[in-house]
Amino acid sequence: MHDTTSVGIVTPQTAHFDTPLTLKSGTTLPAYDLVYETYGTLNAERSNAILICHALSGNHHIAGRYSENEKRAGWWDNMVGPGKPIDTNRFFVVGLNNLGGCHGSTGPSSIDPATGKPYGARFPLVTVEDWVTTQARLADKLGIQQFAAVVGGSLGGMQALQWTIQHPDRVRHALVIAAAPKLTAQNIAFNDVARQAILTDPDFHGGDYYAHNTAPKRGLRLARMLGHITYLSDDVMGSKFGRILRHGAFNYGYDVEFEIESYLRYQGDKFAESFDANTYLLMTKALDYFDPTHHHEHGDLSLALKSVKAEFLVVSFTTDWRFSPERSKEIVKALLDNQRPVSYAEVTSSHGHDAFLMVDPYYHGLVRAYMDKVTV
Amino acid sequence: MHDTTSVGIVTPQTAHFDTPLTLKSGTTLPAYDLVYETYGTLNAERSNAILICHALSGNHHIAGRYSENEKRAGWWDNMVGPGKPIDTNRFFVVGLNNLGGCHGSTGPSSIDPATGKPYGARFPLVTVEDWVTTQARLADKLGIQQFAAVVGGSLGGMQALQWTIQHPDRVRHALVIAAAPKLTAQNIAFNDVARQAILTDPDFHGGDYYAHNTAPKRGLRLARMLGHITYLSDDVMGSKFGRILRHGAFNYGYDVEFEIESYLRYQGDKFAESFDANTYLLMTKALDYFDPTHHHEHGDLSLALKSVKAEFLVVSFTTDWRFSPERSKEIVKALLDNQRPVSYAEVTSSHGHDAFLMVDPYYHGLVRAYMDKVTV
Repeated sequence: MHDTTSVGIVTPQTAHFDTPLTLKSGTTLPAYDLVYETYGTLNAERSNAILICHALSGNHHIAGRYSENEKRAGWWDNMVGPGKPIDTNRFFVVGLNNLGGCHGSTGPSSIDPATGKPYGARFPLVTVEDWVTTQARLADKLGIQQFAAVVGGSLGGMQALQWTIQHPDRVRHALVIAAAPKLTAQNIAFNDVARQAILTDPDFHGGDYYAHNTAPKRGLRLARMLGHITYLSDDVMGSKFGRILRHGAFNYGYDVEFEIESYLRYQGDKFAESFDANTYLLMTKALDYFDPTHHHEHGDLSLALKSVKAEFLVVSFTTDWRFSPERSKEIVKALLDNQRPVSYAEVTSSHGHDAFLMVDPYYHGLVRAYMDKVTV
Repeated sequence: MHDTTSVGIVTPQTAHFDTPLTLKSGTTLPAYDLVYETYGTLNAERSNAILICHALSGNHHIAGRYSENEKRAGWWDNMVGPGKPIDTNRFFVVGLNNLGGCHGSTGPSSIDPATGKPYGARFPLVTVEDWVTTQARLADKLGIQQFAAVVGGSLGGMQALQWTIQHPDRVRHALVIAAAPKLTAQNIAFNDVARQAILTDPDFHGGDYYAHNTAPKRGLRLARMLGHITYLSDDVMGSKFGRILRHGAFNYGYDVEFEIESYLRYQGDKFAESFDANTYLLMTKALDYFDPTHHHEHGDLSLALKSVKAEFLVVSFTTDWRFSPERSKEIVKALLDNQRPVSYAEVTSSHGHDAFLMVDPYYHGLVRAYMDKVTV
């Protein structure tokens, strides 16, 4: 049966950019591609465009399917579609794979035209600011002068926030979900363990593993296992897995004993087969670097948000310990200090950081209500 | 100047056991050694003995120094000594390296008399119950029928709790500090990531790395880095390291950028050089397995503690998220259900799980006050 709330069959597109891009690191990329998808129709006034920014392991495939047979729809299909909270009957939604990604946009596994070989270790580190710059260039290409809203969860929320700082006139609303204004030492620490797992994997070869026909899968698997612990809450892990044994009794060995081990190893294995380790490294660094207060005295977020003109919806989840509600409230306070209109909701959920990707009537109702008041 | 609160120069001793030991796993060890230290003097009534059990990476060297030149004293020197909270003027303190350890007691790196080679992968997994059995045998050898108290923090606290269940007549007081009655799914998850880092290190060689003149140092380093994140609180990491940069500016590469990275990598490197990976694996499994409620309906801790006769001091620390105060309260409740005398204190500390090893006037005063009422 036809699902009337799905955007249906979608096709990714590629935009080529040959205006050189100088990154925050000082490195210049002479040219690059960005792969993207769009859903809905851009209206005549070009006033109904929504940009959705992805998180650590996300990509441009937000909604719909590539074919009837594709098993899973896009990663935020529950949020984006006809009649869904981000309603493609009203809005023209754009999703892209960020620069440095491994799903079609130029990244470490892409061929460097200068050498004819994958960039590997030579691919420059990118920042959230760099991503916003490239997203703005994509908007130019699509004829979008101003987004009705920029939306993102986690690292995607940081991009939405950065949009309001970097291009205050090009974004009317920002939906900053399960995010933080910058990482804590503990956040950076988890990222560094994940990176060290990849960097010290003998198959990493200094980042040029493509040339060795291998990949640091052991390291990437560990990074992902660790990541999953931080995405889930202690609560939900307890209620889903608890101390349940895989085979009913201890086996006194290092094979899977507890169900939680089985879950984590499976997630790690799956990810290590499908994601590029250099992209993972680069995405975690972008997270570490993000800090809109970096150039402001005493790390003052209110000062950093002084020129912001957008209106905001900020959403946090009670059991999210990666970016706790307190971190969202820092953003809310800084916006209020600047007399910015901001709606804030702390959603009760047992699902930890992952809650932002899940169906929850209150959360989805909230986004729907906010989007309903976004004029086009 | 002579430090009158130190036990001074100490010498470890070795006890050999040749009564076969059948472990919970079903494996039998025909013989084994336990290395131990003692401080203070056993009184004529043999009623003033205190057993201190160590945690994941601890050992028998609790207090004092091996020579005037030894840089660091034993790992709990701030707690144990003449006039200290556990006062060696009154008590005879025993510390041992647990079976499976890598500091002198028989463990995976010891020579298996059956083969003339290190046990390696053939060393059996051990449990907290097994440790208590071996500790009781050591007590027999030292002529200690009953301990005035068994004391431990973290995994050591689990051993103290297990003593009161397994040998209710042989322990008058238990000091269970920064512990939990059993691990949560999240606790097990962190342990499994640490283990997978070691097990998938190409230098692990199935546990028989000694024969290859190598060691899975990459994996052990990652395990320790991850461990340190869980030992510290988010708070103390923030105040100690925050987002402080090592070289004042971003370097846009994978070398150390943030101070927290420098700290973690240093801790990981140091540990990987000095600890045996097989012991680390085995200790984390002992943690996972510990569950006094395992054989009781609905995991009922009150039932599991039914035959306990000891009096208790249970201590937790406010920012300990590895074994949070809630976990200590589970023990307190189960003891109260059984009308056991128990004193409980939640110590305000910013230091997370590590707080149990640190000097804190309130915490030390508490242990001192409790120990003062322990009659000998």
